[in-house]
Amino acid sequence: MSTTTQGSAVHPADWTDLDARAVDTVRVLAADAVQKAGNGHPGTAMSLAPVAYQLFQKEMVHNPANPRWPGRDRFVLSCGHSALTLYIQLYLGGWGLELDDLKALRTHGSKTPGHPEHGHTDGVEVTTGPLGQGIGNAVGMAMAARRERGLYDPDTAPGQSLFDHQIYCLASDGDIEEGISSEASSLAGTQRLGNLTLIYDANQISIEDDTVIALSEDTAARYEAYGWHVQTLDWTSGGSYVEDVAALAEALEAARAETERPSFIQLRTIIGWPAPNLQNTGKAHGAALGEDEVAATKEVLGFDPGQTFAVEPEVLAHTRQLTERGRAAEQEWQQRFDAWAEQNPERHALWQRMQSRDLPEGWDADLPSWDADPKGVATRKASGAVINALGEKLPELWGGSADLAESNNTTLLDSPSFLPADRSSKMFSGNPYGRVLHFGIREHAMGAIMNGIAVHGGTRPFGGTFLTFSDYMRPSVRLAALMNLPVTYVWTHDSIGLGEDGPTHQPIEHLPSLRMIPGLDVVRPADANETAAAWAAVMRNNDRPAGLALSRQNLPVFPRGTDGFATTEGVARGAYVLKDFGDGEPQVLLIGTGSEVQHAVAAGEQLAAEGIAARVVSMPCREWFDAQDDEYRDSVLPPSVKARVSIEAAVPQGWRDLVGDAGRTIGIDHFGASAPAGTLFAEYGFTAEHVVACARESL
Amino acid sequence: MSTTTQGSAVHPADWTDLDARAVDTVRVLAADAVQKAGNGHPGTAMSLAPVAYQLFQKEMVHNPANPRWPGRDRFVLSCGHSALTLYIQLYLGGWGLELDDLKALRTHGSKTPGHPEHGHTDGVEVTTGPLGQGIGNAVGMAMAARRERGLYDPDTAPGQSLFDHQIYCLASDGDIEEGISSEASSLAGTQRLGNLTLIYDANQISIEDDTVIALSEDTAARYEAYGWHVQTLDWTSGGSYVEDVAALAEALEAARAETERPSFIQLRTIIGWPAPNLQNTGKAHGAALGEDEVAATKEVLGFDPGQTFAVEPEVLAHTRQLTERGRAAEQEWQQRFDAWAEQNPERHALWQRMQSRDLPEGWDADLPSWDADPKGVATRKASGAVINALGEKLPELWGGSADLAESNNTTLLDSPSFLPADRSSKMFSGNPYGRVLHFGIREHAMGAIMNGIAVHGGTRPFGGTFLTFSDYMRPSVRLAALMNLPVTYVWTHDSIGLGEDGPTHQPIEHLPSLRMIPGLDVVRPADANETAAAWAAVMRNNDRPAGLALSRQNLPVFPRGTDGFATTEGVARGAYVLKDFGDGEPQVLLIGTGSEVQHAVAAGEQLAAEGIAARVVSMPCREWFDAQDDEYRDSVLPPSVKARVSIEAAVPQGWRDLVGDAGRTIGIDHFGASAPAGTLFAEYGFTAEHVVACARESL
Repeated sequence: MSTTTQGSAVHPADWTDLDARAVDTVRVLAADAVQKAGNGHPGTAMSLAPVAYQLFQKEMVHNPANPRWPGRDRFVLSCGHSALTLYIQLYLGGWGLELDDLKALRTHGSKTPGHPEHGHTDGVEVTTGPLGQGIGNAVGMAMAARRERGLYDPDTAPGQSLFDHQIYCLASDGDIEEGISSEASSLAGTQRLGNLTLIYDANQISIEDDTVIALSEDTAARYEAYGWHVQTLDWTSGGSYVEDVAALAEALEAARAETERPSFIQLRTIIGWPAPNLQNTGKAHGAALGEDEVAATKEVLGFDPGQTFAVEPEVLAHTRQLTERGRAAEQEWQQRFDAWAEQNPERHALWQRMQSRDLPEGWDADLPSWDADPKGVATRKASGAVINALGEKLPELWGGSADLAESNNTTLLDSPSFLPADRSSKMFSGNPYGRVLHFGIREHAMGAIMNGIAVHGGTRPFGGTFLTFSDYMRPSVRLAALMNLPVTYVWTHDSIGLGEDGPTHQPIEHLPSLRMIPGLDVVRPADANETAAAWAAVMRNNDRPAGLALSRQNLPVFPRGTDGFATTEGVARGAYVLKDFGDGEPQVLLIGTGSEVQHAVAAGEQLAAEGIAARVVSMPCREWFDAQDDEYRDSVLPPSVKARVSIEAAVPQGWRDLVGDAGRTIGIDHFGASAPAGTLFAEYGFTAEHVVACARESL
Repeated sequence: MSTTTQGSAVHPADWTDLDARAVDTVRVLAADAVQKAGNGHPGTAMSLAPVAYQLFQKEMVHNPANPRWPGRDRFVLSCGHSALTLYIQLYLGGWGLELDDLKALRTHGSKTPGHPEHGHTDGVEVTTGPLGQGIGNAVGMAMAARRERGLYDPDTAPGQSLFDHQIYCLASDGDIEEGISSEASSLAGTQRLGNLTLIYDANQISIEDDTVIALSEDTAARYEAYGWHVQTLDWTSGGSYVEDVAALAEALEAARAETERPSFIQLRTIIGWPAPNLQNTGKAHGAALGEDEVAATKEVLGFDPGQTFAVEPEVLAHTRQLTERGRAAEQEWQQRFDAWAEQNPERHALWQRMQSRDLPEGWDADLPSWDADPKGVATRKASGAVINALGEKLPELWGGSADLAESNNTTLLDSPSFLPADRSSKMFSGNPYGRVLHFGIREHAMGAIMNGIAVHGGTRPFGGTFLTFSDYMRPSVRLAALMNLPVTYVWTHDSIGLGEDGPTHQPIEHLPSLRMIPGLDVVRPADANETAAAWAAVMRNNDRPAGLALSRQNLPVFPRGTDGFATTEGVARGAYVLKDFGDGEPQVLLIGTGSEVQHAVAAGEQLAAEGIAARVVSMPCREWFDAQDDEYRDSVLPPSVKARVSIEAAVPQGWRDLVGDAGRTIGIDHFGASAPAGTLFAEYGFTAEHVVACARESL
């Protein structure tokens, strides 16, 4: 690639003066927008202007007129605080943002919130801001792209499929410091994600200014150790600052040419460039530059310091040509797509269905069911059977575990692992288009990767770990909820029932604290059949995440539809009358979840024997129950019945809303202990006798 | 070091046959103990037997008779699931564990729980099990050792101080995969922790068997990239398995000799060695081997397969000689200590005080206070002033932030940063014995490092980030609570009051979900003076962690002790009557926390003007209030007053317990938005008018 030199920049041969002017316009707009908002992050948006411009205008294949074109390259701004890096390109390229939107930066209801939000602004692929997450998302997208290609077009030569495209991610020093990015990057190396390019903006400035105080590692060497294809560019190496965009373009080309490894481009920049006084400072990172510095920057760049949000019409006309190039690219792709669809009608039908996230007819016809059995089965084991039954009908369903496959029962049997063939083990056979995921002991990356998979296309990922280690992945769970992504967590060993591993492994506060995340469904089935109904309900919800809390220990299987026991039809409503014990209207309500429902049932029997009519309510999902209308809720929990007992082996906060002033709550407000499960349940009061005693108190 | 060769092992020259027999005894005991318990992790304890033995018997300086001897080397078993690795050495060396304790593995009340527990078993330095944490703890211990040396004995030559000792950490593949270990290890490189040695047991087996499916990185190269001193040993390299303990001993010696960098020893082992059938399998990792395999292993090792828990008396007599060596080491140290104490009476007094975690007389005499001010001050800013006032009196107090120092107001001004001098920046001057911590954007490592600092000695660490990113460090927070460690989290930007950064940065569920962690105090002061009282109360509690939730935005400073407003004396009791508005007994109770108390106060005024007597209760810490006796609690919240309103800008779950059936709770049950704080508070109902309306409903 030949190059032309312009002042302190080296531009690719295909750049014109208008490209250079557009890049400087980006810098000025970034400074203006933050100055107008009064707060925000101007520095990175200024110094990364040529990088983002090169990507959006010259490298990526995408169509501003159709932000959801499935054939597009994906872009993840892991450093979400630099939202303007993205917004200004969306403005220049014609995704629908205009100058007024940039002027409305960080104001209520604007299309330009403080951090990019998925589903809120066209062209924003994923919500970022919590650092490191975007790198995990990008790894997930790259994995999803390979899996989807395997479903739709497995036989076409590498690089030749219309389902082949690139995932680009832009990351900051902060993203690199967060452990989640280490986890995801190590796994990306194992997975040989040749479709992924991560650009690391090594500007060596974070909020506490020079990163020398906390970051001295050789990050490029670290990525080499992960098995990535690594290139380093240093725009400061010549003594003066030279924005060598031509070298960057060459590096991006080399990254695309490398199809067997993910690519890492470490790019040394100067944050806030070319602000004369605040460049290379923490001040430029997270605060408005101030009017004087904004004006001085404009002078450096040959803009009128008296004008704000000034964009020359010829610049915008130039950059908006992207719309036409994008349209043409999609049209060309669409022709190939139509040919593929004609040749592959079944795959096309699957593609259509997965695009809309519809479930196929009969998908739930063959779910397993279990006969009544007092000895019973662990709900984690039931879940494993359900996953495998669903997997037969739903190729979009895939997943695995953070190294607890056998404990979580998350393996789709008879399916290959999603792995390069040479990463096979004696136990797991790898196929690049495989279906069983092995995250290693990396719960946080698992969460972010699941998010990336779900935003990329129509597959439905699930991932398992022990419930107590939901803490390790909690920031990603929150983002799944914020983005309304249909991912499913298989959290097993859901209480002190885990037993001997002791307090570090026994969840106590996790169930109620996960319920507090807005938009997350926490589902804790009471027996094997509820587990099947819970999975079915989760699959029907395609617009929100769910976490299944499943038992390690066996739970009795209730006699469904006989002996007064309800079927599992009510599971999807979050709570239902499992059985009314005794005659007449209930005098006391016994509300349980998961493994504790059995004690409510036994207590109901005892109370009925004493002449007290007791209703046992199984409440697998409080969020689903809250979403029911008053009539249904009152039919399950009649407001006139004030005597109520809740029982759940977790911190009791949150149950008072349901049991009221007169009610009693059985829970645990302390850490567990290393002992057999039965010992702990008895010692902590999870017994029918304790439920009966509490019911008597409540009456 | 010359060596002798024994079968498939190479032993250091100072080993006798009894040492070799002791190591094999460890393997047999590990197999027996798990077999008896029925579950557990035998494999690593078997294959690491020579490593643990070499460390405990030959390398480390410690005294089994005094597990708390301050001069001891520290050992962290990051792979806590291999608890037997530690327990069996504690048994052999004479820390108080006996064979009966090993037989009671994983049973209720035993000294040998499923994972090692700090404060439960003598010789266990730290609670481990959640993977990766131990590496972070060890980094924290190494930092604490340097800081403490700087307080007690800064002028003695390197390696010559009685406060110099080593931190050893043993880690598994799982520890290496977790992102927290990457964070902590990168920072350890920056900090040049020459007193830290991390042994990585690269057995390439985890629960999903061969780690090839998820771990293909060159971990040794990664640690080189962090700036560590790296050595690799491969006991499988010769084709057959040779346990070259001599080479390990040499590597440990080289690690100690390297004082400018932390040391990483990657040791390739075979898990479960020498179990003839289950070695090198995932089965050996986490389950009992089975009677046949245990017997077969005993035969391989020349033990009677018919006997269990067989320890030859001469073996135990040999290993228990450690007790005498340890006693002598401590005696020698004590003489040096006494000489130092005599020469350094002030430092010795400080040492004594910090050992007992007592506070000095007058420590809280000069805390800042603020005059009444309707415009007010942000509690994060007040906190910064308090930290600096405390810092003047309490050299044990140190801390910093995960790259948000200026936002969290966590910097001890005029104090140098805890950093090698050559890591200084323009903004922060580094000193190896400095006091200001820079964690980088690594909240999780910050949490684990704080735990390591607190278990190491008498210092009191604090660490800051935004409240929403408490999620990133939550597993470490839980462990601080489980271990009763006096660490303090400075969580600022504690609500939608954060404003423009939007929903990814606005905590919604965090306050109540943190309250659910048993043993953690969550403290949310209502104004600047409450902030000072809160910090004082936190400092008085030396046996539990606390998290301060502090506002970004200014909060009015109430007129304390005048105009009917209470002083801040009640803060330490968790809740108190801030002011009774109107005449006579209160008709309605308005309970608020933090930034929302101001709206309760304004509502109280309005209600009183309408003739309704309203009591405003400020409730900075629910945990402290719950710990008060009934009399106090009833005096603040009279049971006869059923009309109650709570107001807190967080998910409302948990308040029903206090407001009762008749009460109203003002909270937020959805994510926030990017907008100015004032806009959001008004839109979401955090206004005096809404409190008044809810009070009327409740009456």
